[in-house]
Amino acid sequence: MTRIPFPSWPDVAADLIGVATGRSHADTVIKDGIWVNVHTREALPAHSIAIRHGRIACVVPDASHCIGPATVVIDAAGRYMIPGLCDAHMHIESGMLTPAEFARAVIPHGTTSMFTDPHEIANVLGLAGVRMMHDEALMQPINIFTQMPSCAPSAPGLETTGFEITAEDVAEAMSWPGVIGLGEMMNFPGVSNADPKMLAEIAATQKAGKTVGGHYASPDLGPAFAGYVAGGPADDHEGTCEADAIARVRQGMRSMMRLGSAWYDVESQITAVTEKGLDPRNFILCTDDCHSGTLVNEGHMNRVVRHAIACGCDPLVALQMATINTATHFGLEREIGSLAPGRRADVILTPDLETLVVETVIARGQIVARNGQCLVDCPHYDWPGSARDTVHIGKTLAAADFAVRAPDGANAVRANVIGVVENQAPTKAMQFELPVTDGRVQATGEVCQIALVERHRATGGVTNAFVSGFGYQGRMAMASTVAHDSHHMIVVGTDADQMALAANRLAQVGGGITVFKDGVELALVPLPIAGLMSDSPARDVAAQADAMMQAMRDCGCTLNNAYMQHSLLALVVIPELRISDLGLVDVRSFQFIPLLEPVS
Amino acid sequence: MTRIPFPSWPDVAADLIGVATGRSHADTVIKDGIWVNVHTREALPAHSIAIRHGRIACVVPDASHCIGPATVVIDAAGRYMIPGLCDAHMHIESGMLTPAEFARAVIPHGTTSMFTDPHEIANVLGLAGVRMMHDEALMQPINIFTQMPSCAPSAPGLETTGFEITAEDVAEAMSWPGVIGLGEMMNFPGVSNADPKMLAEIAATQKAGKTVGGHYASPDLGPAFAGYVAGGPADDHEGTCEADAIARVRQGMRSMMRLGSAWYDVESQITAVTEKGLDPRNFILCTDDCHSGTLVNEGHMNRVVRHAIACGCDPLVALQMATINTATHFGLEREIGSLAPGRRADVILTPDLETLVVETVIARGQIVARNGQCLVDCPHYDWPGSARDTVHIGKTLAAADFAVRAPDGANAVRANVIGVVENQAPTKAMQFELPVTDGRVQATGEVCQIALVERHRATGGVTNAFVSGFGYQGRMAMASTVAHDSHHMIVVGTDADQMALAANRLAQVGGGITVFKDGVELALVPLPIAGLMSDSPARDVAAQADAMMQAMRDCGCTLNNAYMQHSLLALVVIPELRISDLGLVDVRSFQFIPLLEPVS
Repeated sequence: MTRIPFPSWPDVAADLIGVATGRSHADTVIKDGIWVNVHTREALPAHSIAIRHGRIACVVPDASHCIGPATVVIDAAGRYMIPGLCDAHMHIESGMLTPAEFARAVIPHGTTSMFTDPHEIANVLGLAGVRMMHDEALMQPINIFTQMPSCAPSAPGLETTGFEITAEDVAEAMSWPGVIGLGEMMNFPGVSNADPKMLAEIAATQKAGKTVGGHYASPDLGPAFAGYVAGGPADDHEGTCEADAIARVRQGMRSMMRLGSAWYDVESQITAVTEKGLDPRNFILCTDDCHSGTLVNEGHMNRVVRHAIACGCDPLVALQMATINTATHFGLEREIGSLAPGRRADVILTPDLETLVVETVIARGQIVARNGQCLVDCPHYDWPGSARDTVHIGKTLAAADFAVRAPDGANAVRANVIGVVENQAPTKAMQFELPVTDGRVQATGEVCQIALVERHRATGGVTNAFVSGFGYQGRMAMASTVAHDSHHMIVVGTDADQMALAANRLAQVGGGITVFKDGVELALVPLPIAGLMSDSPARDVAAQADAMMQAMRDCGCTLNNAYMQHSLLALVVIPELRISDLGLVDVRSFQFIPLLEPVS
Repeated sequence: MTRIPFPSWPDVAADLIGVATGRSHADTVIKDGIWVNVHTREALPAHSIAIRHGRIACVVPDASHCIGPATVVIDAAGRYMIPGLCDAHMHIESGMLTPAEFARAVIPHGTTSMFTDPHEIANVLGLAGVRMMHDEALMQPINIFTQMPSCAPSAPGLETTGFEITAEDVAEAMSWPGVIGLGEMMNFPGVSNADPKMLAEIAATQKAGKTVGGHYASPDLGPAFAGYVAGGPADDHEGTCEADAIARVRQGMRSMMRLGSAWYDVESQITAVTEKGLDPRNFILCTDDCHSGTLVNEGHMNRVVRHAIACGCDPLVALQMATINTATHFGLEREIGSLAPGRRADVILTPDLETLVVETVIARGQIVARNGQCLVDCPHYDWPGSARDTVHIGKTLAAADFAVRAPDGANAVRANVIGVVENQAPTKAMQFELPVTDGRVQATGEVCQIALVERHRATGGVTNAFVSGFGYQGRMAMASTVAHDSHHMIVVGTDADQMALAANRLAQVGGGITVFKDGVELALVPLPIAGLMSDSPARDVAAQADAMMQAMRDCGCTLNNAYMQHSLLALVVIPELRISDLGLVDVRSFQFIPLLEPVS
């Protein structure tokens, strides 16, 4: 099952020299292309690339001395030869796809290297889950490097995850062959406060000579930021404006600018280069999170590079930001990120640098995609039962489990309600007066119920609360086992029976997303791997996700990113109000608050 | 004797965070300077640097929150704050100084990091000698990283060195704390021919994740160059013209442009950046070889940066080439090369970027020099007897040892003569008709004698030959135990008695350089460490070297770099004719040739 390790440069140096000097023949020669040289920032017409054992032997004006009877010759016919694109920080789980299917989806877009933080599965399956993702990643025909997740749980004490990541886990993972560094250090208050556990994770990474990923999600560029930088993170992708990007690079971090399915942080930051004229070497492009629909319909890193160019960036500079800048950041500049001797032969052929139509993709010397079609096998890991059986709710749920009891004798109550805000990740802490019937609080009007169903330890726990803003009408419920970051199950609905149906359905299918209305399942996205990912092709998952979002609309929801809003309602690190398996959390104060205000 | 290891970033991260956030106090604050930011390529007025445990805690507009009663405050008073300069490739032995005395000489010039290849001592004392240099390097108050020598002997089969460096030696050295990579891979024909020993040394370095230094000393940019690049060297400092620099960077190597005491390769190559507009990130400045006189009278890396600016390079770009570019190349960008949190606090204060007058030098947070005066202790290693007793000539030499016997009955002979060429490293293979007296060939006219005296194994071996071009007159001899690369003893003279005197004198003092005339020693440069280095201050050694060069002139020599010409006459890798302990070598064919042509 495991792919034979790709040979290292020293493993094949003698043969590369043989080809370069003409004493032996290349496996493949790409002839007559325009060499996009990201070292010098030049486009050099009329060059050829000779490849042996999946690595570049030489790039020369004339490689005819490298061609023998068995050499495959690819005629670039004057097209640009670009290094395969690198996604500097991303979460594969966001596509609801396994690494294999994610790779199959992005290869035709020219992505040949990804730096992935399997943060979601870490919350469900711990270090073992990270290892599974890592192992499937290493089986792929492109380069998928793993960033060891740093923060599970993301909010210790405010939630219970399936597993916790420890500093010892981090130290162990640093010895794995595919681990390139530490995943985004999201606990930025912890770093600024010199939290020993966070510093121990960073230290383990630095001592292994690897890269510490950052995540500083605050506009405060004062002492808290200075403290975070002094703690050691080497990059950050949470900047949203030009000043953020400039501050990070001045302080010796690399600024990762992201264009994800729902992140638009390139246009507002790239002016640091295009207008302020800063040295571009420390600016990097990434996606962070891409849905399968984006991968199917819009692209991946080619979409990001195109966008950067559309924002006014010189095409060669934009390509550097998606190739050599990334490679240098992770200490891989002699392995990937450029078309030069010894490097992995990851090459895109395109007729135009600005539209960046990806016609042919070559990875490790093999043609892996042509005209949008993936031509290579992306092997599946043999996911064990432990990874396919992760929805343990402890019992069959009934409507009664979603009942919110009112204080004895009350006719109405004042409830704290999570207020969803259109197009924003933060919620609003709201209060509503809700009626009481038969001793139970009723969700009415724009308020509906939300429940966090414990699914890791089969405790049978259900935390009930209220949410507003989805616009749901009629008798419906929607449930999802994608529930950042602890990934219990979030059920939102107008009716306790529908909520029970939806929750039990996900327990039955092993996780995913479902929408019920009037006792009928309108849509199901099965996510059997850890309740987070499908091992079906991206096109199928995208279609299922489309149907799921249509079902949400059919229930009355009009929000732009309704599914994302749903899946973030348990993210107890973003203000103002969130739900966790331990209760209702006011993220402004990091305190639990009661669901119902005391009767005055 | 060994200095306590400098604490790592993770060792002190908690305290750096404490200072950055204002919860604790800095050891030192440099206030009110212009922050030369080599990450963004900006000069930012009115910034302060807070330092703790020798590392930078923060760089901020106002560091008053970091200042406590015990904090030392250095007022930059509007001066530029520049990262300490890095010399990316150099040989300490070229200064005829130990690492400690070399450090003491360059610290006032603002050099705070050096990447040193102790190639010369490797030939004399092998791996043990490299370790001694490495250990003294680590004792210094600045950062001296060791590049493990790759090629001793430089010409296997054509010379006998004191020791040989093996691939196993390289692998062992990669585990030493101060070793940063492999020193210049001079055997470029070997790499292009996939010589297993050379590739094994490169592989050991790459597998350790370290940097392979290059040395491709040929104008041929065809397949031989392509083969060399495919072999793995990551940089090269042997380029001499713009096309050389461009070719190297396009192929994914870094171009190191050198200004040494006798190397002038910056002006002819920096046009790749200043005129051709290539991305400057892969261009680096270095010295390669500096004599002590240059260090005393002209400077070190500050001299190189000034020169690059004088050649038209933007001062901030030139500074990047001597700071962050170098740090990135060696994987040290989060340790040195910029003024940013976590990095070693190596800072220069100067009133002007172009003249680069180095007023104050701070290394690891301590003021180490002011106004040209070194203010810090540079501890000496306790060099063992084996390092101080390296001149083993086996016997007391007499005039007879320098006699060249003519064939029986000959009145004259035709001799192959090494022709020294003014201002060039290559020699000319010449032939002269020389008279015979008492059966001995006489050096007459512009021809004098040269002898290679074996000094490593006490074989008593003396290889005699002839040399022209020095212009010596009268009865004189000059001897030196600096004799690249095998470092036996080279004696040049007009008179066999004087040659014996000079050779015996160096055996007596344990190595160095001496000039005799009419039985009197005109000058002596004692080099007791390995016959290569003095542990006296640079100023004293420079004065001795000046006296030695004056003595050469007093003997009639008018060459520009007469001492260098002398010391290179055994360098059997540079054409055309050289002497070794094994005979007279024609370096065009790598063959031994007879001293005297056969009688026709």
